[in-house]
Amino acid sequence: MDIMQVERSLVCTRRVPGLQSVSLRVLRDAKGGRAVAVDTVGAHPGNWVFTISGSAARVAVGARILTDLSIGGIIDRWDEPDPTEGV
Amino acid sequence: MDIMQVERSLVCTRRVPGLQSVSLRVLRDAKGGRAVAVDTVGAHPGNWVFTISGSAARVAVGARILTDLSIGGIIDRWDEPDPTEGV
Amino acid sequence: MDIMQVERSLVCTRRVPGLQSVSLRVLRDAKGGRAVAVDTVGAHPGNWVFTISGSAARVAVGARILTDLSIGGIIDRWDEPDPTEGV
Amino acid sequence: MDIMQVERSLVCTRRVPGLQSVSLRVLRDAKGGRAVAVDTVGAHPGNWVFTISGSAARVAVGARILTDLSIGGIIDRWDEPDPTEGV
Amino acid sequence: MDIMQVERSLVCTRRVPGLQSVSLRVLRDAKGGRAVAVDTVGAHPGNWVFTISGSAARVAVGARILTDLSIGGIIDRWDEPDPTEGV
Repeated sequence: MDIMQVERSLVCTRRVPGLQSVSLRVLRDAKGGRAVAVDTVGAHPGNWVFTISGSAARVAVGARILTDLSIGGIIDRWDEPDPTEGV
Repeated sequence: MDIMQVERSLVCTRRVPGLQSVSLRVLRDAKGGRAVAVDTVGAHPGNWVFTISGSAARVAVGARILTDLSIGGIIDRWDEPDPTEGV
Repeated sequence: MDIMQVERSLVCTRRVPGLQSVSLRVLRDAKGGRAVAVDTVGAHPGNWVFTISGSAARVAVGARILTDLSIGGIIDRWDEPDPTEGV
Repeated sequence: MDIMQVERSLVCTRRVPGLQSVSLRVLRDAKGGRAVAVDTVGAHPGNWVFTISGSAARVAVGARILTDLSIGGIIDRWDEPDPTEGV
Repeated sequence: MDIMQVERSLVCTRRVPGLQSVSLRVLRDAKGGRAVAVDTVGAHPGNWVFTISGSAARVAVGARILTDLSIGGIIDRWDEPDPTEGV
């Protein structure tokens, strides 16, 4: 599971069946890469979340939702660590 | 799920059974990498789309289609963000 | 399976059903990247562990836990090798 | 699915059961990385192909073949695009 | 499937159930990255092998082994190609 930050919602009217009525969020990871995730926990822009990928992502939000990435939870407190710092 | 842009169609006459009669599109991600996806929503070159990978990709376009990447929807509006910009 | 080091626990009160009562650890790989894993073996910060990803991660810790990454075991002794050194 | 070029066959006499009698090809992607794929379409060195990964790779070539990468088809015409060029 | 070289065995006494009695090997890929794989073919340090990932890795070595990476076979002859060299 990965740690990402919610950037905004994704507006997308034309979708495959199986993703019709879900909330999609654009997330950003520590390296600036972007991904789209299904959100069932109600995350807001700026929230740090952890994401579930693969087949678990699908089961996590309901078996009929055809996603490969879902928000698994909102992290209570997250200060992005300095990647050059030792443990 | 990832955000990619449709580049063109892929012409490919010799295929495994299970991919015989599907539309294949060449997509390009933000870093210039290319991938091939099954398209069932009718995306055109230049469209920004989000893609579904893994086993969900297969279910999304019909269980008999043997893909690992499918177009999940066409994004209504997408201005590629400046990766150096803060949230 | 990957070799990672436990950094700390992840505090996260708002989660999807299916991850309610598991211990989550923040891990760090050799390149400084971070990931979140379910821990059922009781790893401590500083421990080197190996991780199981994908659908195996889920089965490893119990079929109802919706994770894509689980700690598979604690490595008895691990000196991070010099990546420039030959075999 | 990814676009790769066939480099050569892989000679490998000692294998796990489930990969005993399949043709294995060494492929090279656009960045020079190498991968091994099961080939059931009869691709030759120099051919550009697209590959199917994950569980779909397995179903594509027969459910008893234990692969995570299979050649999905031979691309009729592929000129590797200039990655710096716009759409 | 990927091409990797066996570096050494992994000593790890505390494991999740489902990985109790398997041989684990530390492998190294062409870029110096390390991974841990289940070995059922008896590979030795220095051997070049190809690896199977994902759910196929699990089936390849027996359905009860909870791995995401397994050694699929020992390559008879492998001279690591010069990545800058053309096909």
